[in-house]
Amino acid sequence: MSEHPSTPRHSGGGVLSRFSFNQITAKSWGLEELVAGCVQAGVGQVALWREPVAEYGLARSAALVRDAGLTVTTLCRSGFFQLPDWFDDNRRAIDEAAALDTKVLVLVSGGLPDGSKDIAGARQHVADAIARLVPHAAAAGVTLAIEPLHPMYAADRCVINTWDQAMTIAARHPVGQVGVTVDTYHLWWDDTVLDKIARAGERIAIYQLADWITPLPAGVLTGRGLPGEGCVDMRAFHDAVDKAGYTGPIEVEVMNAELWARPGREVLDATLTAYGSVL
Amino acid sequence: MSEHPSTPRHSGGGVLSRFSFNQITAKSWGLEELVAGCVQAGVGQVALWREPVAEYGLARSAALVRDAGLTVTTLCRSGFFQLPDWFDDNRRAIDEAAALDTKVLVLVSGGLPDGSKDIAGARQHVADAIARLVPHAAAAGVTLAIEPLHPMYAADRCVINTWDQAMTIAARHPVGQVGVTVDTYHLWWDDTVLDKIARAGERIAIYQLADWITPLPAGVLTGRGLPGEGCVDMRAFHDAVDKAGYTGPIEVEVMNAELWARPGREVLDATLTAYGSVL
Repeated sequence: MSEHPSTPRHSGGGVLSRFSFNQITAKSWGLEELVAGCVQAGVGQVALWREPVAEYGLARSAALVRDAGLTVTTLCRSGFFQLPDWFDDNRRAIDEAAALDTKVLVLVSGGLPDGSKDIAGARQHVADAIARLVPHAAAAGVTLAIEPLHPMYAADRCVINTWDQAMTIAARHPVGQVGVTVDTYHLWWDDTVLDKIARAGERIAIYQLADWITPLPAGVLTGRGLPGEGCVDMRAFHDAVDKAGYTGPIEVEVMNAELWARPGREVLDATLTAYGSVL
Repeated sequence: MSEHPSTPRHSGGGVLSRFSFNQITAKSWGLEELVAGCVQAGVGQVALWREPVAEYGLARSAALVRDAGLTVTTLCRSGFFQLPDWFDDNRRAIDEAAALDTKVLVLVSGGLPDGSKDIAGARQHVADAIARLVPHAAAAGVTLAIEPLHPMYAADRCVINTWDQAMTIAARHPVGQVGVTVDTYHLWWDDTVLDKIARAGERIAIYQLADWITPLPAGVLTGRGLPGEGCVDMRAFHDAVDKAGYTGPIEVEVMNAELWARPGREVLDATLTAYGSVL
């Protein structure tokens, strides 16, 4: 395997040791293939998504990753607090994270309720909803990682759109119970964010890489780039996260229609090459 | 014409007196038809774009609107400071605004230079470029109206993406020489913006309405809604702009592919109806 671009040797063991492959990046890959592919490539960490885990079965998924020796860095994702069943669904998600031995559950807040123009009200509801979930998450040993999504998702996907909004909500709760997700794709445009990340200390629950490429596709969901392909200064983000003292996993999470059309192993190799190029 | 939805009677003369029809909203309309259509509908103010003005001829355009008794509320748009000829082109734009007797030139800063990942550097360049243009603009009696564009345009269209960024640049110059454009489409997601607009006083150079509708189309440029069609709380914006003491024109500027496919007069009528519904 020494010629393979995705062996640990390729990126250097120290750097690869923090790498985590987010399942959505190779969306077409089944869970068994994902786990086998990661083991073969020397990748010890993955981030899983709730839907494919449910499809494979929660207990089966937990056994599969455990038996392969993989760590699940995050479960993606819960939240969507505009939906009627948000309370029960988020409690289930916390239980799923615990079953997978995952310490971090990523929260995407959801957009505006149908027909609403009250974004301030929706944001207040998100803060209240998270407060109601904290006891269950804390009991399960799961950190809720609020993810601020790019402002272009404010209406239909996530009303939490800035670092400040996420940190303000997180700060009401103990460190370790509620944190924030640093995703380069969502935050890179903010001229104030790097300094704030550098001061965020243990509030950083997870660090995710994706690059900004244009033009954006219709729906603006599946046009993200592998790290290094776009205009985000990844080095500046690494420095900020380092300054904060974050030493946890670095996930590559890229939603890209062209990438999704390629075989999973090819995607993993491309991801490792991209990751190595920006670290 | 009393049955026509776009007579002054329709929206009330007081409210219609502040309405300005931004030319881009009826992109297919030629300049002569635009002017005739506005006069017929009792609309006394228009915002013009540089390209159609140049096509019709600057002096001819100026005579056309003057003879029709129309006021040109803004000239859209200049900026694009990442281009090599930004200095000469922006000075020409200032001269064009003056020739049209327009008091306000809208500035869209432009995106990153090709291949650049240095957004902080690009932003500094915008501030420097505006400082270099101020003497010429002041001499011509033209206010430079920095327009913060939505963060989804940060890479390829405009590196100035927040109210704070625009105000910080404007504040280095006298009121009346450099101001800021309030465009609901670009600013609505920002949870801090309404309070800041309310305190902006005479820095508000122009107020523009467009609504946020989803899903976004590919390229994210031509999917804006008429006021009231989307999720922006227009009343909250009006209140903030009122509190600031702004009493100037209210432009409706909507880029929408479906609207562009309709006859200009239909578009103007729909725009007036939408404007009336949110004022």
